[in-house]
Amino acid sequence: MARFPFSAIVGQDEMKQALLIAAVDPGIGGVMVFGDRGTGKSTAARALASLLPPIMAADGCPYGASKEDQARYPEVCGQGKLVKRAVPFVDMPLGATEDRVIGSLDLERALRSGEKAFEPGLLAKAHRGFLYIDEINLLEDHLVDLLLDVAASGENVVEREGLSVRHPAKFVLIGSGNPEEGELRPQLLDRFGLSVEVRSPKDIDTRIAIMKLVAENEADPQAFAARWAAADDAILKRVAKGKARLAKLVPGDDIYRDAAELCLAVGADGLRGELTLMRAARALAALEGAKSVNRKHLIAIAPLALRHRLRRDVLDETGSTVRITRAIAELFG
Amino acid sequence: MARFPFSAIVGQDEMKQALLIAAVDPGIGGVMVFGDRGTGKSTAARALASLLPPIMAADGCPYGASKEDQARYPEVCGQGKLVKRAVPFVDMPLGATEDRVIGSLDLERALRSGEKAFEPGLLAKAHRGFLYIDEINLLEDHLVDLLLDVAASGENVVEREGLSVRHPAKFVLIGSGNPEEGELRPQLLDRFGLSVEVRSPKDIDTRIAIMKLVAENEADPQAFAARWAAADDAILKRVAKGKARLAKLVPGDDIYRDAAELCLAVGADGLRGELTLMRAARALAALEGAKSVNRKHLIAIAPLALRHRLRRDVLDETGSTVRITRAIAELFG
Amino acid sequence: MARFPFSAIVGQDEMKQALLIAAVDPGIGGVMVFGDRGTGKSTAARALASLLPPIMAADGCPYGASKEDQARYPEVCGQGKLVKRAVPFVDMPLGATEDRVIGSLDLERALRSGEKAFEPGLLAKAHRGFLYIDEINLLEDHLVDLLLDVAASGENVVEREGLSVRHPAKFVLIGSGNPEEGELRPQLLDRFGLSVEVRSPKDIDTRIAIMKLVAENEADPQAFAARWAAADDAILKRVAKGKARLAKLVPGDDIYRDAAELCLAVGADGLRGELTLMRAARALAALEGAKSVNRKHLIAIAPLALRHRLRRDVLDETGSTVRITRAIAELFG
Amino acid sequence: MARFPFSAIVGQDEMKQALLIAAVDPGIGGVMVFGDRGTGKSTAARALASLLPPIMAADGCPYGASKEDQARYPEVCGQGKLVKRAVPFVDMPLGATEDRVIGSLDLERALRSGEKAFEPGLLAKAHRGFLYIDEINLLEDHLVDLLLDVAASGENVVEREGLSVRHPAKFVLIGSGNPEEGELRPQLLDRFGLSVEVRSPKDIDTRIAIMKLVAENEADPQAFAARWAAADDAILKRVAKGKARLAKLVPGDDIYRDAAELCLAVGADGLRGELTLMRAARALAALEGAKSVNRKHLIAIAPLALRHRLRRDVLDETGSTVRITRAIAELFG
Amino acid sequence: MARFPFSAIVGQDEMKQALLIAAVDPGIGGVMVFGDRGTGKSTAARALASLLPPIMAADGCPYGASKEDQARYPEVCGQGKLVKRAVPFVDMPLGATEDRVIGSLDLERALRSGEKAFEPGLLAKAHRGFLYIDEINLLEDHLVDLLLDVAASGENVVEREGLSVRHPAKFVLIGSGNPEEGELRPQLLDRFGLSVEVRSPKDIDTRIAIMKLVAENEADPQAFAARWAAADDAILKRVAKGKARLAKLVPGDDIYRDAAELCLAVGADGLRGELTLMRAARALAALEGAKSVNRKHLIAIAPLALRHRLRRDVLDETGSTVRITRAIAELFG
Amino acid sequence: MARFPFSAIVGQDEMKQALLIAAVDPGIGGVMVFGDRGTGKSTAARALASLLPPIMAADGCPYGASKEDQARYPEVCGQGKLVKRAVPFVDMPLGATEDRVIGSLDLERALRSGEKAFEPGLLAKAHRGFLYIDEINLLEDHLVDLLLDVAASGENVVEREGLSVRHPAKFVLIGSGNPEEGELRPQLLDRFGLSVEVRSPKDIDTRIAIMKLVAENEADPQAFAARWAAADDAILKRVAKGKARLAKLVPGDDIYRDAAELCLAVGADGLRGELTLMRAARALAALEGAKSVNRKHLIAIAPLALRHRLRRDVLDETGSTVRITRAIAELFG
Repeated sequence: MARFPFSAIVGQDEMKQALLIAAVDPGIGGVMVFGDRGTGKSTAARALASLLPPIMAADGCPYGASKEDQARYPEVCGQGKLVKRAVPFVDMPLGATEDRVIGSLDLERALRSGEKAFEPGLLAKAHRGFLYIDEINLLEDHLVDLLLDVAASGENVVEREGLSVRHPAKFVLIGSGNPEEGELRPQLLDRFGLSVEVRSPKDIDTRIAIMKLVAENEADPQAFAARWAAADDAILKRVAKGKARLAKLVPGDDIYRDAAELCLAVGADGLRGELTLMRAARALAALEGAKSVNRKHLIAIAPLALRHRLRRDVLDETGSTVRITRAIAELFG
Repeated sequence: MARFPFSAIVGQDEMKQALLIAAVDPGIGGVMVFGDRGTGKSTAARALASLLPPIMAADGCPYGASKEDQARYPEVCGQGKLVKRAVPFVDMPLGATEDRVIGSLDLERALRSGEKAFEPGLLAKAHRGFLYIDEINLLEDHLVDLLLDVAASGENVVEREGLSVRHPAKFVLIGSGNPEEGELRPQLLDRFGLSVEVRSPKDIDTRIAIMKLVAENEADPQAFAARWAAADDAILKRVAKGKARLAKLVPGDDIYRDAAELCLAVGADGLRGELTLMRAARALAALEGAKSVNRKHLIAIAPLALRHRLRRDVLDETGSTVRITRAIAELFG
Repeated sequence: MARFPFSAIVGQDEMKQALLIAAVDPGIGGVMVFGDRGTGKSTAARALASLLPPIMAADGCPYGASKEDQARYPEVCGQGKLVKRAVPFVDMPLGATEDRVIGSLDLERALRSGEKAFEPGLLAKAHRGFLYIDEINLLEDHLVDLLLDVAASGENVVEREGLSVRHPAKFVLIGSGNPEEGELRPQLLDRFGLSVEVRSPKDIDTRIAIMKLVAENEADPQAFAARWAAADDAILKRVAKGKARLAKLVPGDDIYRDAAELCLAVGADGLRGELTLMRAARALAALEGAKSVNRKHLIAIAPLALRHRLRRDVLDETGSTVRITRAIAELFG
Repeated sequence: MARFPFSAIVGQDEMKQALLIAAVDPGIGGVMVFGDRGTGKSTAARALASLLPPIMAADGCPYGASKEDQARYPEVCGQGKLVKRAVPFVDMPLGATEDRVIGSLDLERALRSGEKAFEPGLLAKAHRGFLYIDEINLLEDHLVDLLLDVAASGENVVEREGLSVRHPAKFVLIGSGNPEEGELRPQLLDRFGLSVEVRSPKDIDTRIAIMKLVAENEADPQAFAARWAAADDAILKRVAKGKARLAKLVPGDDIYRDAAELCLAVGADGLRGELTLMRAARALAALEGAKSVNRKHLIAIAPLALRHRLRRDVLDETGSTVRITRAIAELFG
Repeated sequence: MARFPFSAIVGQDEMKQALLIAAVDPGIGGVMVFGDRGTGKSTAARALASLLPPIMAADGCPYGASKEDQARYPEVCGQGKLVKRAVPFVDMPLGATEDRVIGSLDLERALRSGEKAFEPGLLAKAHRGFLYIDEINLLEDHLVDLLLDVAASGENVVEREGLSVRHPAKFVLIGSGNPEEGELRPQLLDRFGLSVEVRSPKDIDTRIAIMKLVAENEADPQAFAARWAAADDAILKRVAKGKARLAKLVPGDDIYRDAAELCLAVGADGLRGELTLMRAARALAALEGAKSVNRKHLIAIAPLALRHRLRRDVLDETGSTVRITRAIAELFG
Repeated sequence: MARFPFSAIVGQDEMKQALLIAAVDPGIGGVMVFGDRGTGKSTAARALASLLPPIMAADGCPYGASKEDQARYPEVCGQGKLVKRAVPFVDMPLGATEDRVIGSLDLERALRSGEKAFEPGLLAKAHRGFLYIDEINLLEDHLVDLLLDVAASGENVVEREGLSVRHPAKFVLIGSGNPEEGELRPQLLDRFGLSVEVRSPKDIDTRIAIMKLVAENEADPQAFAARWAAADDAILKRVAKGKARLAKLVPGDDIYRDAAELCLAVGADGLRGELTLMRAARALAALEGAKSVNRKHLIAIAPLALRHRLRRDVLDETGSTVRITRAIAELFG
């Protein structure tokens, strides 16, 4: 569980791409990671978080409020001076209670002074960073739903125990699960922006490469980190430039039409599929430094944006990814 | 989850009609929305609430009491001066407890002063506005029942923890659910006034139109709102006029007979079907500025008022809407 | 849920008759109402309660004690002066806890003064009136049983949390349920005195009549009430006279024999059937102003008194009512 | 639920006999009553209790301690003067908690003074009287077992919440249940001393007689009681004489042999059957004023003492009572 | 439930032998008693306990500490003077909570003084005596396991509610159960040292003898006890001598080999079988005053030591006892 | 449950080897022990712990902090002087609560001073030693997962009840279970570093040898310990030298390739298999005093490192160990 340099991660290209897109446009709506056990699903997410530059956050604020948060939530974020703080990466501990996730009544203060005060939870801690949930399929549905609600709205609204609080909670939700042990309800899956698949590599040389990288890191973490610092820094710059470029990229009508046609063709219910697809294509274009969003970006990102939203087709049991690729071939040839 | 102008909503005509009818006659008894995931079921409800003009409510009153409420519930609504307040839109958070919904003992005060005081819940907050419940089928039956009871009586009666309180709670209950994941009990469905179906549009151009509207709104919400202000204002006027006209519209005997015949023909149990049908037809006539309630109004609103009350007919598995349309054709030709 | 004049209720004759009999002889043991949803099962009960003349009850007494109660339960009913009070009608709220129904420790006082005091529950509130329970089949069996115990004995005995209290609790228990969704255990059903069936009328004109009465009442409740005041008053007088006449009506031996023969013929287990049948026939005779109880009264009331006590006969699946009518025809021809 | 004179009870001879035997020798081990609903199973038990002469009990003692109890349990029964007190009849309320049955920590005193004191429960109240449990099959097994343990040992040993108390609790346990709704585990049944069956009489004249007795009692309970006082008094005298005679009746060897042979013949497991049979035969002899216990007494009481202990015989599905009668005929015939 | 002289117990020879062996070597690991209901399974255990001579225990010590305990657990057993105390016999009450069994936080002291003190439970009470659990198969597995752990280690280690206590708890665990109602898990059974079967005698004369003994005891317990005092005293002496002789008996290699061969032959898993078998054979030899442990002792005790550890053999459904006897005949025959 | 000298343990070679490897490289990730009941699964682990030399730990520190811990966790480990302390061996008591395992709010202090303090749990106690869990398959999955998380990260992160604590918790987790009663989920199994199988020996002489060793130990534990002290000391030295040698052993590329090929051949999912295999081979080489890690070490340790990670192959039901041995023969054979 040592922090591993992002650029030293081998054989998880789709996962890394999804994370970079979410870093460029955090509004993309969370990443769901499917994969076998033992494939280091959390390594890449953790690595990205530690790679990102520190944020400026209100000193002592439990929410790590930005200047905008202080203006919008004056009653909870105070007026503290802004100081540097690492991008938060919250790894939800197994058995964390709903109370601890969304926050709860501060019993201590309630008992001492008779005042009802709010004690921020993990959602507060994750604001402006990442919230990682391993084996999300073991979580109760209503908690997953709640997390997705907050991730979507960027705000945690608490109505419990006589408390009525709302505080900023913008984070990239990353869930991981093994499709072999119970799936999420389609309703929940649909609410994730992107999904990726992580498999252990099947070729010997990649496996040896990974083993050696792990061993090197274990033997001397600091030397290892130094060796990959430049590569990590290059990635960091790409993300920063992508973010800056994002608002300027306005997709043309042809791209809208491509997205709608592709979604109808693969049978993605609802409109969330095409809305996410457009957004992800734009973020990818920004990350790649493109001047405009084009069909190439759409095609590249389509499996990640649509794969988990396909209606099960009993007559066509080919996997979701295959169906998307086929539809792309038929439509855009 | 940004507030979207009501008039900018594309492709949800039935939903919009039901909401306008409920705005004209809030006594109609709630709206149940059936629909796929990702079709923005709550968008229209939220949009309507933010479109309505502010209400005059007792200053500082947790119930937002009107002058009439103050007279009728002097002990809970106080005598505060009336001030402007936005129409409440309460989105029931997942995992809200029964306590928080109906209100509970104010523990803080109980501990401090030994007095039993009532702490109003979400029902109090929703008074004179809307209470939206997503995935209402995931709620426990008894809570749904309780909500429908309160919505029907306009009053929340609390008998718990040694408390005995009654306060006004008039609101339009809007429930949404996906018929594919477990239905409500017929008893509960029957208690909703109207039901509507929301599907994602299947034609490309509408889908593109929606995507672009969403993108425009996201890029610059204020400009977007300004662009639709006039259209929203026109709707607001129609609702206001409809409300004023309502009491003057007395349906004729022929309309009563039509309603009774239609309900018997489609096999709606009980009398709630025809009572709602009459009421909805009258509200529709009022909304349309008609001089009288006529068969056209009845026919237009019948699917919304009856669809969810039909007894399942094992010999005739055609959908509820089809059966209603067919009965209308046979009866009224 | 507006109070509706008892005499304006159309198409629920059996229900109305059962309620009047219970008003004449409250010891009859509760009324179970079977019926479809949306048939306004509670309307008649509520209407009867509001029609009855006020009772004289000890001022400030939570049990609404009568003079006799004060003598019998001096420790709980105090010595307050008697004042007028409306006949209580308690509508058991869904989700009412056992504590709230039977009463519980008064926590407030316990915390403040260290004294264990009893806080009366809904059973106390219902004393000398009606306790209405909608969808009684959704209540836990042991709570139904407890309610029937109290209804039968006229006394609530509480042995909980170190409390040991007994207080008067005489009320007419009215339960309603839809036979289509889970039945009560036979043991519980048997303990109800009478049962009635309420169906929505199938003829158009009655349905129109009801719709118009409802609309009239809604439009102007006060005028509507005034219009039916005289009819309601006549009913009230009939009940009062019936009560006065009751003790004087001593059934003859032939009627006892009729009752026993009928019960044996239809196969009603136990003796509760014939005891109730006799009692109900006498109350009916009293209500009708008859000089004596005769076979006509017995026949008229037999379906209400016996229908819910018949042992299921696998060889004869005809409904209970039919079996009773047939037995009457065979015996009394 | 009015107290009915014991001698006025018609058609429940077996039940009455069992109760009288238990009154003569309370160590017989409880009576289990099987019977249909509505047969007034508790009436006879209640009647017997109110018929018995008052006991001399320590003034203010929650256990109603006798002189012997005071000597044996000085720490819980105090030294209060003996005063008259009615024989206790405790009707276990449905939903009574384990705490309330066996007694619990007196929270009030614990909070006020920090002392752990014991608050006696229903077992304490029932000491030297009757504990009646309706629908005992609905009680949790472990509670039934506990009640039987206490009934057998005559002592309630409490080891809970840091309390360690033992107090006298000698009572006749009477359980009732309908064999049609779930039986007691054989282990529990076996621990009851006697069992009786109560059915509603099938002959018209008995049923009429009962109806009239009930009606008479209801019309004027005091006159009714007076009418049966002499008969009740005679019964009381028989019981008193039986008790006095009991110790002097020493069964002969032939009776022991009869009992053992009968138990082996019918296949009663364990030795509890013959021990109870002997004891019951002796009590019956005492009640009848016989000089010695003879085979007639054994035969008369055998069905009550053995019926509920027979091992189910899959090849011989004749009822238990029939099997006992047949074995008697074959052995003693 | 009267204490019965050990020597007056008729027809339970195997049970009596097991108890005497456990008295000689309490480290043998508990006795499991299988048997029908009503066979007085606890009578012998209780009788043995009351027969044993008093122990010397620290005055006022809740653990009844011996001199050795005081040295080994100075912090919990204090330095109290040793006084005489009866051998404890703890009959675990049904419904005893885990807290009460293993001990718990002394709430009283915690509330009064803010100190966390340990309140000893039933395990403490049973130290140096017997712990009897009727219907052990009704206990939750984890509680049984815990009891066996403590019985095996002679020490109760508590890690709960912030408490961390260890105190001596050496006792003979005696569990009883009816194999017809759910068995213990093999893992749990295996942990009992010995098992015995108790059946009600099938011959008339023994049954009569027992009935008469019970009746005699009931009629005059003191005279009965006096009559059997000499026999009980002889047993007591045998046990005392056996204990003294135990350490000196060192089994020869041939006996080890016999034990190993027998266990392999009957298919007892694990090594616990032969370890117990050796130990029990040695205790039996000591009890019988033998100079050495020989094959006769091994054979005599083998069914008790092995019967409950045999792996179920689907091809050979003969009972465990038969398989052991057969193996003995083949091996040593 | 007496401590047994490690070197006196007969017939559990695989278990002993796994423990020694874990002692050399505690980062290996826990040992899972499969085995029948009664095979003394915990004996070896316990023996190893008591054999290891004392650690230097901060005086009074509940975590037994090392110098490094004090530097890294100054807020929880204090600055206490280092003193000798035995290697902790924590045997998780059945029924230990999650609170007690991970630590909890110190209620005592919270009540007394209103401060929220952390009360360390069993994880704290196990730091730098062993945590043994018998019948780990009976533990709830989420607790097992949590234990494995902590074991892997060497740190216990607590986010509960408003507490937010992290403290060092490096320990070797040893779980035992009987594969016949419910298995662990593959996900959990995969997270154990090594697994071993313990069976009772089937040859008579070994069994006799064990019995005699047990008897000797029981008769005179001190003499027994003295007899094996030299052998234990030799083992201790081997472990100490192995630890020192570990960091210097850098496996060559051929060994990496062997590991990857073997894992692919047997079908171990994910990369955890080969990472552990490499690590275990290195630790074995260190323990054996080898100059380099070679194929022989890899082969020797492969069954322990891979056996519990194999994907079930429905066409090849040969046991895991056989499949590994076969693959080794084919690849390296």
